[in-house]
Amino acid sequence: MGIKAFAPASIGNIGIGFDILGMAIEQPGDEVIAKKSNTPGLRITRITGHQGKLPLEVEKNTAGVAALRLLEHLGEPGRGIELEIHKKMPLGSGLGSSAASAVAAVLAVSELLRTGLSKRDLLPFACQGEQVASGEFHADNVAPSLLGGIVLIRDNETLDVHRLHVPRGLHATVVYPQLHILTKDARAILKPEVPLDAYIRQSANIAGFVVGCFNGDVELIGRCLRDEIIEPQRAGLITGFYDVQAAAMTEGALGCSISGAGPSVFALSANSLIAENVGQAMQRAFANHGVESRVFLSGVNQEGAVIC
Amino acid sequence: MGIKAFAPASIGNIGIGFDILGMAIEQPGDEVIAKKSNTPGLRITRITGHQGKLPLEVEKNTAGVAALRLLEHLGEPGRGIELEIHKKMPLGSGLGSSAASAVAAVLAVSELLRTGLSKRDLLPFACQGEQVASGEFHADNVAPSLLGGIVLIRDNETLDVHRLHVPRGLHATVVYPQLHILTKDARAILKPEVPLDAYIRQSANIAGFVVGCFNGDVELIGRCLRDEIIEPQRAGLITGFYDVQAAAMTEGALGCSISGAGPSVFALSANSLIAENVGQAMQRAFANHGVESRVFLSGVNQEGAVIC
Repeated sequence: MGIKAFAPASIGNIGIGFDILGMAIEQPGDEVIAKKSNTPGLRITRITGHQGKLPLEVEKNTAGVAALRLLEHLGEPGRGIELEIHKKMPLGSGLGSSAASAVAAVLAVSELLRTGLSKRDLLPFACQGEQVASGEFHADNVAPSLLGGIVLIRDNETLDVHRLHVPRGLHATVVYPQLHILTKDARAILKPEVPLDAYIRQSANIAGFVVGCFNGDVELIGRCLRDEIIEPQRAGLITGFYDVQAAAMTEGALGCSISGAGPSVFALSANSLIAENVGQAMQRAFANHGVESRVFLSGVNQEGAVIC
Repeated sequence: MGIKAFAPASIGNIGIGFDILGMAIEQPGDEVIAKKSNTPGLRITRITGHQGKLPLEVEKNTAGVAALRLLEHLGEPGRGIELEIHKKMPLGSGLGSSAASAVAAVLAVSELLRTGLSKRDLLPFACQGEQVASGEFHADNVAPSLLGGIVLIRDNETLDVHRLHVPRGLHATVVYPQLHILTKDARAILKPEVPLDAYIRQSANIAGFVVGCFNGDVELIGRCLRDEIIEPQRAGLITGFYDVQAAAMTEGALGCSISGAGPSVFALSANSLIAENVGQAMQRAFANHGVESRVFLSGVNQEGAVIC
């Protein structure tokens, strides 16, 4: 008997909150199945949907490392467990693919072993797994994928994370273009300094975004969804970005920016109908630049990772 | 018959929110009395408590300009009105003295003429008055002095301001040392750029501060009250600042930083008893550096400016 866990994709940064905000969406997401085995040790027996890109070696695999760190914490590093990883979302898309695998793995193993640990307890292990892929101990995809909702990561080191209130009706449109960006390149491109006046405006918009969430004020959220620090530096990595963004805004999106390190582009809208129209417009705009894309429509995923 | 309005002092920036946050305190504050006159035109007939530093000419006085802009808005720029300004707080203290005078003036005149305008309606005129003193159209002292509470100024141009929830028990200690700083100097000293990593941490703390306010989580507010961008650049202008800050933290303050452009130093505490002990410790620390100071203790002023 195995345990299957699903962990959703997430929109890192949410445009305005570089490295500090993330939002879980309903789909896509990854599944991990954990089974007990009489052979000692953690093994990854199967990975599907990864086009040969992910290693089966536990110590090199985000899901493997996440599960292993949990087992070590439990004092059972040699416990016989088999993992199957079913990637149901694109790799390197800016949707937190590695985070989702790490999250699903720790949740499945925790449930399999009936550890009684809360999701919050599992957060550090999932972050350690995701670190294998990103090179940094970051919770901006892991925390929303695990906990659900819109999450502020105040501090990565202490995992001081806080779920924000999610305004009713808020919907996400994510468009994943057939473009390739390495997260490392997307970080390397960033200037080491921020102009003081841009910092002031952006900090006002970050604070306003949080106020908008707590007050259920989607118009305020819309006014705040402007990233003038990171987006201008990364937009050039995404063919047609500004046309895609303009198309989303014309259709009535509250805001539109880059999901995580890209190349996916997300928009937030006040309801599902607008979100759908926005998605079609964004896809057309990419097509005008000769870029094929997939669209994901979703409310904010309030549950996060689940056993299924 | 005249109308007397009181407008409170305010803590601009609240440490973490340079140019975007402000908090009203209960005392000190300024009073403005407005009276109708048969002689056409707005006149300032008397200013007390200013040690000869403030001009009686309407167009050079923050209260005068604020009242005049309101009268112009009402289509009555020549209306016969006399203003008395009673400064009951120190000038150039970093406590929003000019903002308080401007706020009290517009509120008194609005009440005198029974305009029916809301406080929110009066905000732009008070900002125009305060601009005479500061040279910039800024609401980070004006908005809290007028509206009360803890206020986010998301955008000065459109006066997109939002009151935050104020956690129960939150108390402010303000210590005003006998030091002199010009706001212009305090701004000129600032570097035009902010390191990216400091920006990321500070934006997380700003967002966390707002979450702490809405969730009534004073511990979180405490973790977020760290200004690593502006404070280090201005601390040197205030003799003994780091000792005063350390004294406040040792006594259990949630956080301690510079009020506005200084020289006043504020601390926030979880209750009035701590706030009082913090004030004594801060005053002793200043005294150790040979600096005399005054202490103001206050809850968060939820009312803002009032007719009295």
